[in-house]
Amino acid sequence: MNQREEALALDAADPLAPLRDQFALAPNVIYLDGNSLGVPPAAAAQRAQTVIGAEWGEGLIRSWNTAGWFSLPRRLGNKLAALIGAAHNEVVVTDTISINLFKVLSAALRMQDKRDPKRRVIVSERSNFPTDLYIAQGLIKQLDRGYELRLVDDPSELPAAITDDVAVAMITHVNYRTGYMHDMAALTKLIHDKGALALWDLAHSAGAVPVDLNGVGADCAVGCTYKYLNGGPGSPAFAWVPHRHQSDFEQPLSGWWGHRAPFAMDPTYAADDGIGRFLCGTQPMVSMALVECGLDIFLQTDMQAIRRKSLALTDLFIELVETRCKEFPLTLVTPRAHAQRGSHASFEHPHGYEVMQALIARGVIGDYREPHVLRFGFTPLYTRFVDVWDAVEHLRHVLEHEIWRAPEFAARGAVT
Amino acid sequence: MNQREEALALDAADPLAPLRDQFALAPNVIYLDGNSLGVPPAAAAQRAQTVIGAEWGEGLIRSWNTAGWFSLPRRLGNKLAALIGAAHNEVVVTDTISINLFKVLSAALRMQDKRDPKRRVIVSERSNFPTDLYIAQGLIKQLDRGYELRLVDDPSELPAAITDDVAVAMITHVNYRTGYMHDMAALTKLIHDKGALALWDLAHSAGAVPVDLNGVGADCAVGCTYKYLNGGPGSPAFAWVPHRHQSDFEQPLSGWWGHRAPFAMDPTYAADDGIGRFLCGTQPMVSMALVECGLDIFLQTDMQAIRRKSLALTDLFIELVETRCKEFPLTLVTPRAHAQRGSHASFEHPHGYEVMQALIARGVIGDYREPHVLRFGFTPLYTRFVDVWDAVEHLRHVLEHEIWRAPEFAARGAVT
Repeated sequence: MNQREEALALDAADPLAPLRDQFALAPNVIYLDGNSLGVPPAAAAQRAQTVIGAEWGEGLIRSWNTAGWFSLPRRLGNKLAALIGAAHNEVVVTDTISINLFKVLSAALRMQDKRDPKRRVIVSERSNFPTDLYIAQGLIKQLDRGYELRLVDDPSELPAAITDDVAVAMITHVNYRTGYMHDMAALTKLIHDKGALALWDLAHSAGAVPVDLNGVGADCAVGCTYKYLNGGPGSPAFAWVPHRHQSDFEQPLSGWWGHRAPFAMDPTYAADDGIGRFLCGTQPMVSMALVECGLDIFLQTDMQAIRRKSLALTDLFIELVETRCKEFPLTLVTPRAHAQRGSHASFEHPHGYEVMQALIARGVIGDYREPHVLRFGFTPLYTRFVDVWDAVEHLRHVLEHEIWRAPEFAARGAVT
Repeated sequence: MNQREEALALDAADPLAPLRDQFALAPNVIYLDGNSLGVPPAAAAQRAQTVIGAEWGEGLIRSWNTAGWFSLPRRLGNKLAALIGAAHNEVVVTDTISINLFKVLSAALRMQDKRDPKRRVIVSERSNFPTDLYIAQGLIKQLDRGYELRLVDDPSELPAAITDDVAVAMITHVNYRTGYMHDMAALTKLIHDKGALALWDLAHSAGAVPVDLNGVGADCAVGCTYKYLNGGPGSPAFAWVPHRHQSDFEQPLSGWWGHRAPFAMDPTYAADDGIGRFLCGTQPMVSMALVECGLDIFLQTDMQAIRRKSLALTDLFIELVETRCKEFPLTLVTPRAHAQRGSHASFEHPHGYEVMQALIARGVIGDYREPHVLRFGFTPLYTRFVDVWDAVEHLRHVLEHEIWRAPEFAARGAVT
């Protein structure tokens, strides 16, 4: 592509373009960080007012029933199910991804311990999002029964690492830095062939790429709602356990919301028969209610249409960076093959941090990940082709004029 | 008291009365369930709009730093500290009470296991709120190292139950059904004299009664913000660990927010040196931000003033029920002694469920707890003495005219 008009033409022909109007987008910003925090659905502000005014303020305690608060984790789970190939009553929206991972990993290890107690290894990737590794480390230390976390440095090493002492392979579908996407079907089969269970982290997949958990026969999954699903900052995460495992999956965070009769006030825990056993305590309803606003936009389209546009956006971004910024030291770290690419694209640059700060100052919001990685997320529901063009032009300007060398772009702060 | 005017006179002389204007109260409702879900602070609706519009919508990902989202669990913890006798950097607002209980109970057991591995008993009360018992049961099952949950049926049995094999006494300060309040100082001393650790659940205490955790030398505590603290439905809970234990308390839910350098993306967990290690995953910011609206009202008064009014309200309620409804089978289950009473008052009635439904239909909102218990919570920041008078008049009317016998009051649904 050589002209901005071509990007505008792609937008004019984009069947998803009208959905952009259902988001409250900041003016003068090109937002390429929906893989970290999605933007607000336009309906979110009003929904919050309804929850706070009518449901909390007027309904008061009654709203646990009358406004459906108590059932919301299951109801939202059922809405989300369509996006990840899950069945009805296999998903709950609740807690955080770290906590849900602790639940399903505990349950999976316990199931394997009953089947084959020699299996004491959890396989994952060193490049996984750290919280996944930290949760596995915390659980291993707590169990203190000889479990081991075996990490590989490259996806190609997974087949050799998944040996017959592996209990669970804990794999993040789309890598948060590189955007590398695993072949979920093939890897699940390989994991099963070795007698291990396949635990998938969908943080960068749900709402970003098609996922078919039941189709591939996965064993459990977790994911988040505040990235591509636009649920709001830190909105509750989700857990998926298929019907075939629900009654055998026991998890230790056995709070009252997971009890089969929470209001009977029985002093002895008895887990819900179904996915409800992956609930624990009372959930934050204002944040949780907003998750529905994001899901309702997804239900107007489908993941195949989203995937087509996502690949077109990342293809265009890679092409434009490599042609229009070719004289600068930018190295693509995201796979070129469609089958291995999620919905973000990352480039390394020796001064990646400073370059990203300079872009942000110009209103092009991507993010930076250690070490050296400029990360750009493409969210087909509201990212336009012209945004891609304009973002690359800003990048070219920042590099050509060495704007990133300004001292104000050097100071580091926390980003998520 | 014999006349409504006397109640009005008490309101006119009440120094806390002006604070009522800082709440968005439903019209035509006498709300006596703030011990289950507090009412919205008037500031909450606007705060939600700011978080959704300016912080999420315009600040976008930058708000993790610029709007202070990332530090909010600690900042709110420091505001809350004053209400429970905690020091700076000893409290975080995060996750749910069930999950925080899992963290501190795990940490306390681990500390005791290093000191004296013979201690394998957790003592609690059978009448504790069930989720506390469920969490202990889940943890015991997971650890599978011979731990035992020893439950007493009456507070008077605690001294005999806390023997030298006890690792942790897990006590809820104010009982959710009866309103019975333990002597936290005396019981903590007794627990320590037996070499055990004192874990306090403050669900019905924080914002309801004075608590001095450091004064009594407690070892750890959890509590919730959605009851007396008016944080909103299911708003995040809190955990307290005193400075003296922080570096020795290890908890297994080791997510990235508890890491000492969460953005270094180190694949190995290293816990924060301080209270930050009790954080786990990304928190729901819209719900969490509203917690501050409630706390800011408390900071305009103090717990001694709140306690004086709380006792006056519960004294009056008990007196009026026992004089004006004396011909009906209502039995007080809340202690008469001030030192043993929290901020709610409960009566048993053989048809408690139906009586409460009839009251709710008339706009007097208390709640019902199995078996037979009518529970009425008194929240000094917004409950008036005239509300107490009027509520008892409604109760008398419901009983005198047997309104509770109407079929519509018999059907049971979930209430929290």
